[in-house]
Parts: sequence; C-alpha cells; structure tokens
Amino acid sequence: MGLNKKPYKGCRDFFPEDMRVRNYFFEHMRRVAESYAYEPYDGPLLEEVELYKAKSGEELINDQIYSFTDRGNREVAIRPEMTPTVARMVANVHKQEAKPLRWFSIPNLMRYEKPQRGRVREHWQFNVDIFGAPKNLGEIEVLSLITQFLKSFGAKKEMFSILINDRSIVDAVFNKLLNLNNEDSYKLYKVIDKAKKVTPEKLNVMISEVINSEDSKVIFTEYLSLNSFHNVVIFLEKYAIDKDCETFLNFTRLVSQTELNHFIKYDPTIVRGLDYYTGIVFELFDEHPDNRRAIAGGGAYANLLQIFNEQPLQGFGFGLGDVTLKDFLQTHKLLPDFSKPKHDIMLFYTSDEEEIPTFSLAENLRSRGVKTEVSLGTIKFNKIFKLAENKGYKRVGIVEKKDEKLQLQIKDLTDKTATFYAVEEIEKISNFLN
Amino acid sequence: MGLNKKPYKGCRDFFPEDMRVRNYFFEHMRRVAESYAYEPYDGPLLEEVELYKAKSGEELINDQIYSFTDRGNREVAIRPEMTPTVARMVANVHKQEAKPLRWFSIPNLMRYEKPQRGRVREHWQFNVDIFGAPKNLGEIEVLSLITQFLKSFGAKKEMFSILINDRSIVDAVFNKLLNLNNEDSYKLYKVIDKAKKVTPEKLNVMISEVINSEDSKVIFTEYLSLNSFHNVVIFLEKYAIDKDCETFLNFTRLVSQTELNHFIKYDPTIVRGLDYYTGIVFELFDEHPDNRRAIAGGGAYANLLQIFNEQPLQGFGFGLGDVTLKDFLQTHKLLPDFSKPKHDIMLFYTSDEEEIPTFSLAENLRSRGVKTEVSLGTIKFNKIFKLAENKGYKRVGIVEKKDEKLQLQIKDLTDKTATFYAVEEIEKISNFLN
Repeated sequence: MGLNKKPYKGCRDFFPEDMRVRNYFFEHMRRVAESYAYEPYDGPLLEEVELYKAKSGEELINDQIYSFTDRGNREVAIRPEMTPTVARMVANVHKQEAKPLRWFSIPNLMRYEKPQRGRVREHWQFNVDIFGAPKNLGEIEVLSLITQFLKSFGAKKEMFSILINDRSIVDAVFNKLLNLNNEDSYKLYKVIDKAKKVTPEKLNVMISEVINSEDSKVIFTEYLSLNSFHNVVIFLEKYAIDKDCETFLNFTRLVSQTELNHFIKYDPTIVRGLDYYTGIVFELFDEHPDNRRAIAGGGAYANLLQIFNEQPLQGFGFGLGDVTLKDFLQTHKLLPDFSKPKHDIMLFYTSDEEEIPTFSLAENLRSRGVKTEVSLGTIKFNKIFKLAENKGYKRVGIVEKKDEKLQLQIKDLTDKTATFYAVEEIEKISNFLN
Repeated sequence: MGLNKKPYKGCRDFFPEDMRVRNYFFEHMRRVAESYAYEPYDGPLLEEVELYKAKSGEELINDQIYSFTDRGNREVAIRPEMTPTVARMVANVHKQEAKPLRWFSIPNLMRYEKPQRGRVREHWQFNVDIFGAPKNLGEIEVLSLITQFLKSFGAKKEMFSILINDRSIVDAVFNKLLNLNNEDSYKLYKVIDKAKKVTPEKLNVMISEVINSEDSKVIFTEYLSLNSFHNVVIFLEKYAIDKDCETFLNFTRLVSQTELNHFIKYDPTIVRGLDYYTGIVFELFDEHPDNRRAIAGGGAYANLLQIFNEQPLQGFGFGLGDVTLKDFLQTHKLLPDFSKPKHDIMLFYTSDEEEIPTFSLAENLRSRGVKTEVSLGTIKFNKIFKLAENKGYKRVGIVEKKDEKLQLQIKDLTDKTATFYAVEEIEKISNFLN
C-alpha cells in the first residue's frame, strides 16, 4: 500500500489548469485594487490565538479554528480570517501614516469546515480595507471597487446586487423600539440571520420566542419588510429614530448620485454577526437563480484597534473568496477556458547536432519575452504537429540544416503557413512571435 | 495592557513597502518560469505528516516541522517544503500526461527555526521542477532557468556560481574506493557538509574519526581537493570509476557547449543530505564576500513516486527562498527602491459640488487602466502639492469649476507644467496619463 495521493481533506490541489484560473482571479484582484490606489500587504500564516479570541466570533474559535501549541509553548492558530491581522498591522503604523490607509491582500485562510459547495477548508480571500476615511466616502469607494472588480470579468448589473444594511438601524430598532436586553438582541440577530432561509410560519414562531409584546412584533415585522431606501426613510421617520441613523441617510443620498445606485439594495436581514461591525454592513449577492448566495461580505468597524490600546480608527472593508467567485463566474458563463497553457512557440530539432543551437535560440527568445518550450531530445518530423497541437500551441519552430546553415522554420498550425529565418535573426524572429 | 502588536515570532508582516518587494520577486519568478513554458501549480497548506516522514530528513521532522492533530484526529503538518507535495500531485497525473512535466510554484512554507540572518520561520520559495525529461537535458534546462532568473534582476556572471556535484561520484568514492558501510557513509556526508566551515586541522580530525586507513584518507583528501570538471575526469579515470559516473561526464560535455559553462563549478562538498537525491546536486552560491551563502539548492531525484506505489519518474528541480534572494540582491545593490507606491495620478476637489464628478471621473480613468487615487473630502488648494509629493506622485489632478464648466487641471509635479481638460474628455485624459 502506497501513501495517500489525495490532498488533505477539504483542501485543494491546484494542477496547472486550476492554477491558471486562480492566477486569473488574483491578477484581476491586484489590477482593480491598484487602479483604486490600494496598496498590497500580507501578514504571517500564524497568529497567536489571543488575537482571534479578542475579536472573532465564538463559533469560529470553538469549532472552526486550526489552533495548536507551538514548540515554544505559544497558543497559535492558522489565520481563519484576515481582519484581526490587518488590525494588528495598522495598529503598528496608523499614527505616523497619512490617512486614509488603503490596503488589500489575497491571503490563504483555513477553517475547519464541513466541505460542501462553496465551502472548503483552505481558501484564498481578496481583502480590501480603507482606514481613516471621511464618513461614508470610504464606503462609497470600497463598494465601487468591488462592483468594478466583478465588472472586470464581464459581469453585468443584473447578475449581482449589493445588499446593504446599517448597524445603527438595527441598534435603534432593537434598543429604542423593541427595548431588548443584550441577550434577546443576540437571539434576534440569529433570527434575522435565518429570516430568508425559513418559511414565514417558522419565522413567526422564531420571532415569538424572542419578542412577547404584540406591538413589538408588529414593529419588527414592519422592519423585516423594508425593501428600499425610500421605505427605510419613511420607517425611521415614523418611529422618530431617523436622528440615530443620520450617517446612513446621508450615505443613501450620496449613493443615489453615483453608479452604485444600480447595484445597491436595502436588505433588513443583512446583519453579519454581533461584535465587529459598527456601521454599514453588506453582502454581495449572486442574482442567478442557480447560485443564490453571497459572494462577498463586509462592513464598517470603528473599534478594532482598541484591543491594542490604540485610539479608534474608522475602517471599512470586505472579504471575497476564490471559491464563491469561481461559482459566480461559472454560473454566469464568465470563466474563460484555461484548459491549455498559453505559450508562444514550441521548438523542435530532428538531429543531435541541432540540439545546442536550439537551446541557444530558445534562451535568446525567452530573454526577449517569448514563452518558448523546447522539445527535449530529437523527434521524428511527422510527430511534431500532433504533439504541439495537443499541448495547445498555435505555432511550432523546427531548427534544421539547409545548405550547411541552420534555419528556423516557423509553422503556423492554424493557417498552415511556414516562415523561414536564419537562427541568428533573433530580432526578426522575436518580433514575429511577440 | 493591549494585545501584542508584533507578528508571531520568526514571521514577517509585509507592509506595503515590503509587499511591493515580494511582488517584484514573484513577478520575476512567474515571468521567467513561464518564458521556459513551466506551468504554475500549488498544493494545500497542510499535508498529512506521513508524507514528510516518508521522504524528508529526520532533523526536519523531529525539530523543525509544525505538526499537530486536527479535529478529525489526523496528524497534519504545515508544509515545510514543497517537494513531497509536488511528488504527490505528480503521482496523480503522470500516467496520462505527456512528459516532461514542467511545473513551478511559489508556496509559503514554515519551519520552526531559530530566527537569524537569511532564516525565518515562514518564507516563500520559488520551486521549479521537471519530470520525465531525457537524461541531462532537464538539468541543463532548469539550471539555465535559474541563471536567467538571477540575470533578470541584473545579476552579472561574477556575482554568483552554480556549485555542482553528482551523487554517482560520491557513491562511487564512498562505496567502491573507501568501502564504507551505510553508517560511516552517513557520518562522512555530515563531514563533507561542514568541510568549508571548519579549519583544515579540524577537518582532518573529523575525517580521521570516520576513516581509519591512511590510503583511504589520501583518496578522500584527493576527492575533497577536486575543483574543476577537468580534475574530476582525471580523478575518476585514475581510480577506474569513470564508468559509474558516465551520465555526469556526459553532462559536463554538454554544459561546456552552453552559456551555463560561465556559471557552473565543480564542488565536492555539495552533497545535500542523504535520502532524496540520486544524481546531480547543486547550490547557487553568492560570490560576494559579504554574503557567501547559498541562495538556492536542488538536484535530481529518481524515486520520489515510490512512496505512492508508482513507477519511478526522473525529476530535477530546485527551491529558492525569498529571504536569501533579497539578501543577494541587496548585497549587490540590485534591489530597486520600493518605498513609495507607483500610482498614476491623485485627484483633488476643493468644494463639495465637485465631489461626485471627481468620483465619476476617477471611475472612468480606472476602468481605462489609470491607477487613480481620489483625495476623499475637500481640501485647501495650497495643501495639494505637498500631500501628493509626500505620497510619491508625479502628477495631480484638480477638478474645478471654470466658466460654469467642470475642468480637470493636471499638474506635473516634476516640471510644473499644467494641462487642462474638460472632465468629459476621458479618452484624451487617459491617453495623456497612460
């Protein structure tokens, strides 16, 4: 019995075909983030568990984190999310750096999950955050960035939505209108989180378990029915909690003047956990009936630096995973074919004396940016085209002797034309191939 | 007391300045590997410990590996090296894929090391491997690739060497000439490994502890003095072990006809551990007196697939770490300045009514590939230039009202020239900036 050839459970091997897809995602992430002048960062794979205990939710720590004791007796964990790390890093530099800080990263993260569609144990996550931006303007910028990111793959506006809510609304409803204590607030958060996944009857039962008074139930049901910024404004004014949500109301006015208006929808069921977020929260949602799920999520947080004894610094950001992105692009048929590599030419030689000259020609072409594969060893002429075609090449080069001189025959496999060069004509050859 | 703001011991935070350097390295790795038609791959962060027990050295498993038991009772480890993973992956596909397979990856790896110059606990490693290539030709190609990789940063041939040896020579000397048993072979390997780090007297003592006969000592000392391919040939013929090393002798003849000849030197002290390697072994060595150390190392291995019960497949490859690469480039002053980001323009507006038009202009420029930062919020005109200069910008754009129309003034911070556009002239503006 040999060793197991499978990857560790819930993790993926990225064979070249898979890796080209991942690289394609990463290139878009970097290109779009940099077009917004966001700067790259990364942190270590391991952090001390304390960091996650301070900010991540209990479920993550108790059930999902990969933690262990290192040889120096430190309690460490493989990073399950990037926000605690970025908060730690920002805590180191925020005093001396000009605000806002605009940062992005694409870390691998691990959670001990039950593997299922859209969920694996190791994934890569595009993290984008802005720190210290003027009220609402950071939100607008980051939401524009994520929209532009999906559009960069060819996504159209009917394919996805940004479902948005604000913790100030939830807090005002819970505390001022429903007069809930902390414990009941927590329970009702959980109910909201499940609101879309259960039947209206079941939802009613769940609400009744937390809210007793009929008046409160009416208000809460009214809250859950809000489906536009317009309705939100009416609701907030009706219950006189519009002053508590002024920042959000300004945000909606700002959004209405931008492109974002086509993508953003109010959704009262978006709450995203208890601790972390303090302002706007959102989920990017796939509108395709076959893949109705969140592709990304994020929000505003004001207090992440407190655990390091630092002054508060307003932050807003999101995480977007490579698995959910792939599901989205595949569902909408936006993923190009990456089954074959895209190299420029494959060189062949049919006798030993052409071996070293072929290697030398290849070196010259590569240093000029031509992606050049050499077929190592001599080959029979009649095998060349089949082999190159199988590998996805559009062109082959054959180094051969003609009148005592070495020439390169470049054969186009699509239109069958042949072009001939002396092997020394490097400039001409590389211009032809580039 | 707040939480610790430092990264986990021996690991690095990559702030944007550091991350730009890392990205610069990775871009070169990808570009050079792809110019040789190598294909990208990656494996999971965790592997079952069994995999490393089967192939990695004892020191690594006992002292350096990050291993733990997962929630499903599996013994797993954070990958300390990539070769076992790539062997596992190749074992899955080698039967159906055309040979040779040319693969590269840039994984993060972890070892529990004592942090010191050139050594950290988490590093990134450029791994390049070829599987199933004709004898010696894979070696020539991979060694050319690593040479080209260093040259891509501007390294000249006097800056580094490829120190090379062959396990067939070591084996012939140990087994046929010195008649050593396995245990003594192992000890002598360790002596060789330290040969350059100790005084000749100390070396002599160490040799005497393993080899008793004076004749054997003479032969071994003669072996250790070999410093050119020419001397190796004479030595092998003198002791009639040239037949055992025929593949290597062919390799040297081949090398002498290529560019590699300028970089490769024979070095009898390069052995690289006991298990894994079966043919050529090498280290890329910095020739600068301030940084005399290995930047990369690798070799040929024939039996890596055996642990999966698969047929043998010849492999040759290397690993090159980001830390040693950075040390090399810094020592030779080959590392460009990455202290500031390189974005194209920073846009400003001085009154609220220009806010949304500035955002909209920025969106348009970004979608045309212009890296555009917007200064969020209004700003006093006299603060603009100082702010942009500190951030490393060469150009700023100011959106302002002129004769009831919005115009963009682009100011070049180097030559102080100003250019004016209507904000609608997106094509012209982006052409000017691209």
